[in-house]
Amino acid sequence: MRVKELYLKYKKLKENAGTHSPSISTLISSIPEIEIDIDACFLSNPYATKLFFEYFKKDLVVTEKIYSTLEYYPSQNSVIAEDISRTIGIDSKQIFVCNGAIEGIQAVLHNVINGKLSIPIPTFSSYYEFCKSNLTPYYYQTSKEEDYCLNLRSYQKFIDENEINNVLIINPSNPVGSYLSLNEIGNFIEFNKSLDSIIIDESFIHFSYESKNLDMCSVHNLINKYDNLVIVKSMSKDFGIAGLRAGYVLMNRKRVASLLEHGYLWNVSGLTEYFFKLLQNVDFRNEYEDVRKEYLLDSFDYIEALNKIKKIKIINTKANFVLIEILNGKDSEEVTLDLLFRYGVYVRSCSDKIGLTGQYIRVAARSKEENLKIVSAFKEYFQ
Amino acid sequence: MRVKELYLKYKKLKENAGTHSPSISTLISSIPEIEIDIDACFLSNPYATKLFFEYFKKDLVVTEKIYSTLEYYPSQNSVIAEDISRTIGIDSKQIFVCNGAIEGIQAVLHNVINGKLSIPIPTFSSYYEFCKSNLTPYYYQTSKEEDYCLNLRSYQKFIDENEINNVLIINPSNPVGSYLSLNEIGNFIEFNKSLDSIIIDESFIHFSYESKNLDMCSVHNLINKYDNLVIVKSMSKDFGIAGLRAGYVLMNRKRVASLLEHGYLWNVSGLTEYFFKLLQNVDFRNEYEDVRKEYLLDSFDYIEALNKIKKIKIINTKANFVLIEILNGKDSEEVTLDLLFRYGVYVRSCSDKIGLTGQYIRVAARSKEENLKIVSAFKEYFQ
Repeated sequence: MRVKELYLKYKKLKENAGTHSPSISTLISSIPEIEIDIDACFLSNPYATKLFFEYFKKDLVVTEKIYSTLEYYPSQNSVIAEDISRTIGIDSKQIFVCNGAIEGIQAVLHNVINGKLSIPIPTFSSYYEFCKSNLTPYYYQTSKEEDYCLNLRSYQKFIDENEINNVLIINPSNPVGSYLSLNEIGNFIEFNKSLDSIIIDESFIHFSYESKNLDMCSVHNLINKYDNLVIVKSMSKDFGIAGLRAGYVLMNRKRVASLLEHGYLWNVSGLTEYFFKLLQNVDFRNEYEDVRKEYLLDSFDYIEALNKIKKIKIINTKANFVLIEILNGKDSEEVTLDLLFRYGVYVRSCSDKIGLTGQYIRVAARSKEENLKIVSAFKEYFQ
Repeated sequence: MRVKELYLKYKKLKENAGTHSPSISTLISSIPEIEIDIDACFLSNPYATKLFFEYFKKDLVVTEKIYSTLEYYPSQNSVIAEDISRTIGIDSKQIFVCNGAIEGIQAVLHNVINGKLSIPIPTFSSYYEFCKSNLTPYYYQTSKEEDYCLNLRSYQKFIDENEINNVLIINPSNPVGSYLSLNEIGNFIEFNKSLDSIIIDESFIHFSYESKNLDMCSVHNLINKYDNLVIVKSMSKDFGIAGLRAGYVLMNRKRVASLLEHGYLWNVSGLTEYFFKLLQNVDFRNEYEDVRKEYLLDSFDYIEALNKIKKIKIINTKANFVLIEILNGKDSEEVTLDLLFRYGVYVRSCSDKIGLTGQYIRVAARSKEENLKIVSAFKEYFQ
């Protein structure tokens, strides 16, 4: 009875939240009866949050520099781009600083590209929701038989047949987590170098790897070779700082200059500017690399444990989450609410994701301790 | 000799900073020899910063809630609009939450209005810099003889003659500080109710007053009466929190919905969301009202003292700054650098402001103590 009431309250909330899950703070403030123990919707490395917070405390709170950080205007976009440039070694004039990657996606879709945009589905919905009259989304359906992994040969055919001028690849993809190697992506970019734009969204790339020592992968280094390349990078997931709003887009100088000519003057906060300065700190970067690998190793154990649970199918992933097909006959919304109300585990129902056939939820990798709790809840629930 | 070197360094920096003054942090990090004692470019109430910081410390730092504020995604635009709605009593569907008023200005100029935009000059330069091909700025020159105060009768003639469909009034104006009464503005809006848009930028309105007890003024309450009204509101100046990035735009429901349909999903940080929640706190609002009035009273003394200094002319103001005409024969850039290098007082040269005839600087009202130092520097320098 009580669960049913909660269910109705949640449903109403979700209707009002629009196209994305209601945030945890909205959820808690709207339905105080809910006890969320673990937010497994939230795709971030909690060890990195902890690391960032240590520096933040030491650098800004203890020194009270936080005062001036909140009081004064941050630097302008082009100045913060220089901070990022010093970290990633790419010319600052090719860096568009964003208030979260989502601002970069919006800026590119509204101002940089025109015509057609091919979007492999399922996908991060903003890529089609943000399309205005200047841009028509062309949905490329990945195949359930191939676990929704993007088949580049078939995607190429789709691009050619539909005379697409702008293409999107999220690598690793969201909500699937499937990964294309740098080699595959590199060949794809080379083949399509005459298109207007190739958008590679690497928001989750810090969780992907090709070598045994789990080194980071990226197509960052191709930005100077291909004028049509647009690389989107979020900081929210890998650094666990979504509340800060930080991201960037790499693209050719003309495109960056054109965006800055008519806007985006002071578009990130003083704290985000602090973060991009912190990224230049070698100690921080080394410690980050440690917690990145620690998180990955914990995720491997987690996914292995999830893989053993019956009545669910784990889709192969190189991101910090897994897409799970539910095979116990229940629908994904019901499973989501059951897990929330019975175990305090908040997972992402994928019922609103276009391009998925079947019942799916997306579950984040969290800390080792939380992962164990999620696995234990799943075991009990699905047995 | 040393001053000359600093002068050259500053000049180079300003060239790179684009159209706005280099921020104080850029300035300090680029020219460490400069000792800025007082940033009189920065148009904010320092007492309000202090007040905000007390709450911030108590609510977020001591409790360590700052951790989750930085870690988790903030709520979506429409949810934060509800927080603001509860404070200002306007329907949340008429509130577009912005990452600083400047984001709102950009959103309106790029997406909401089209055709012609009349802009009284001198003005805040983003209003014409952000105009893209969809919008042509029409500059209305205010008169030096009238101290650049906007003459509404003459402005109306300009609007009619040029068949303007969108008009802008910044009230009080920037960089002049001249104020039009609610009555005058109200009549102007009523007369122009058939235009496509009337933008009233009230970013500095908390420093204006009509009654002896210095109560706040605003045209907020007209938003339900006029469908074409667009009210821009910054939080950076009155609350002294520019580093946070917070603002909003009030406009009709259709316009807000159209902006949110294709973007602006998570466009403010967790800290900005905290600020808008704090605004609902009656204690905070009452204390804010006290420091707002305290700041105003201090400003009156300050302006009175500045008025007594020879070789400068103080333009009448109802904002938290004064536009000052320099009458000692020097140009405004030179005066700015002299004040910076000799007294550590950083003022805003207005040499780049279109529409001003003569040499002008803009000087902010700061704390009582800082105001005294500014006055003392001015006295010594201009005598």
